[in-house]
Amino acid sequence: MSNARDAYPADRMTLREVGLRDGLQLVKRFPATTEKLAWIGAEYAAGVRHFEVGSFLPPERVPQFADVRDLIRFVASCRGARSAALALNERGLADALQTPLDEIVCVVSATEEHSQANMRRSRSAAVALVEKTAKARDVAGHKAIVNVGISMAFGCSLAGEVAEADVLRLVEQCLAAGADTIGIADTVGYAGPRQVAALTSAAARLCGNDHPLIVHLHDTRGLGLANASAAMDAGCRVLDGALGGLGGCPFAPGASGNVVFEDLAFLAESKGFATGIDIAALAEARAIAEREMPGEAFTGAIARAGLPANVRWHAAR
Amino acid sequence: MSNARDAYPADRMTLREVGLRDGLQLVKRFPATTEKLAWIGAEYAAGVRHFEVGSFLPPERVPQFADVRDLIRFVASCRGARSAALALNERGLADALQTPLDEIVCVVSATEEHSQANMRRSRSAAVALVEKTAKARDVAGHKAIVNVGISMAFGCSLAGEVAEADVLRLVEQCLAAGADTIGIADTVGYAGPRQVAALTSAAARLCGNDHPLIVHLHDTRGLGLANASAAMDAGCRVLDGALGGLGGCPFAPGASGNVVFEDLAFLAESKGFATGIDIAALAEARAIAEREMPGEAFTGAIARAGLPANVRWHAAR
Repeated sequence: MSNARDAYPADRMTLREVGLRDGLQLVKRFPATTEKLAWIGAEYAAGVRHFEVGSFLPPERVPQFADVRDLIRFVASCRGARSAALALNERGLADALQTPLDEIVCVVSATEEHSQANMRRSRSAAVALVEKTAKARDVAGHKAIVNVGISMAFGCSLAGEVAEADVLRLVEQCLAAGADTIGIADTVGYAGPRQVAALTSAAARLCGNDHPLIVHLHDTRGLGLANASAAMDAGCRVLDGALGGLGGCPFAPGASGNVVFEDLAFLAESKGFATGIDIAALAEARAIAEREMPGEAFTGAIARAGLPANVRWHAAR
Repeated sequence: MSNARDAYPADRMTLREVGLRDGLQLVKRFPATTEKLAWIGAEYAAGVRHFEVGSFLPPERVPQFADVRDLIRFVASCRGARSAALALNERGLADALQTPLDEIVCVVSATEEHSQANMRRSRSAAVALVEKTAKARDVAGHKAIVNVGISMAFGCSLAGEVAEADVLRLVEQCLAAGADTIGIADTVGYAGPRQVAALTSAAARLCGNDHPLIVHLHDTRGLGLANASAAMDAGCRVLDGALGGLGGCPFAPGASGNVVFEDLAFLAESKGFATGIDIAALAEARAIAEREMPGEAFTGAIARAGLPANVRWHAAR
């Protein structure tokens, strides 16, 4: 039904823009729909092709994602671009299947504590929802792939340490349940590069060739790019980032958020991976987001310092 | 005469605090001597042992280093601590040898353009000064080791790309001239992890067992910690950092400076290297520096977000 490798070719580095979803989760003010479309459009023009655009949740509870259907339709109109959105329950799933969404994102917590506190369900109930999602997708004859993100995979704000074996068992269960891609997320920024390398390698082995592995990192404690570099070294070819590092953590007020998309692209290029992204051109999208969210802290070193002049890996392009 | 391995044991990770030198190079206002001593004292109490404390330059030209002798004497009074300071000409060298300095730092530019523009001498004249420094040290019967830093080793703001072979030739020349330790510096933050890994491995091979290799990184384009992680993976066991990321770059106004010392320590610990540093205790030194330099941008993720709670590599200590 679905071919996740068409979306994420194994021979190139794909960067997913999650700023419109994870980046807007906690903002005080969010952009108007037209401005979100302009943001996506500017990033698309810069070469970005993967956009996580929201979550199927009641708009009265989460107003920043009320326009998720508009964004999905817009992305569908951009040739080669792909949309992803969260469907965290059966209602959301049914809604998602009414749209031309490319990726249905399910979330499974790595720890029982976080699963109960955050989703009010057990981890096995979350895995069961993955299975329902894949089946409903098949029944509907929908093209979407099922992308399962395992949150708190590197440490949990509630349970503390997370055993690698627990995460790997969940990876296996999610694959058996029908996940097309697996994401491992350092939701609260606890990971270090050694841990990222180890879990990435082990999870990638379980995923095999058919199931792309996505690494989702936060820069809460400054190691976001060091961890991303370690993930790339360990074979990961799909990483998430958010424009301007949006997405601060509710458990660490004032802390930095998702890995900065611009800097992540710079990292990948510096390591010799062609991302297809014109890093300088991302400034336009950033300007839109900054204008729409004046109260948010936008971070990122490339935005401050600019690209280096005249160095090898840029000259080579 | 000197044993650089006593200063930098091969079997552990040593982090050098360069904030009192590189971090103060361009500040608008610098701390009073008593406050610099309090800063060193607070870091010493947190486990830091290596302090680069200034430069032997005319105080009327560079007033922030006028108290370099006081700082060297203070460090000498802290058991197990080591001081380093720059001596960039024969006059500075003669002055340095009058003090109980532990490391005389010489600087050689990787490119002829930068050498002429910054030091008004050729690269070979800079290497000749290394030889003079080692000889004068021997004649004086002084205990100091000669630490040669190669600036612009990963890219040059004037010449652009820097060939690895050029840097390695300079490393060989400096070792032949009597350097005890070699530093490779990403002075303007052009490096990426792949380049850092390659040059670190190659330079470490030339340095062999007797000559510790130091990697000095700036976070100008956000890759400071990713590069540090790559350097550690490539075998580097001595890295520089500056408290609060002091040391912005004159060529990139508003850009971030040296790798943040606190975050560098966190990175090293997360990778399983015991640094001997109590990261939380560094906050005291930071408070002193922030109070004394209200106009400077202090950065660092650990200072914002705190250490992660209850994760493996901290529980293990």
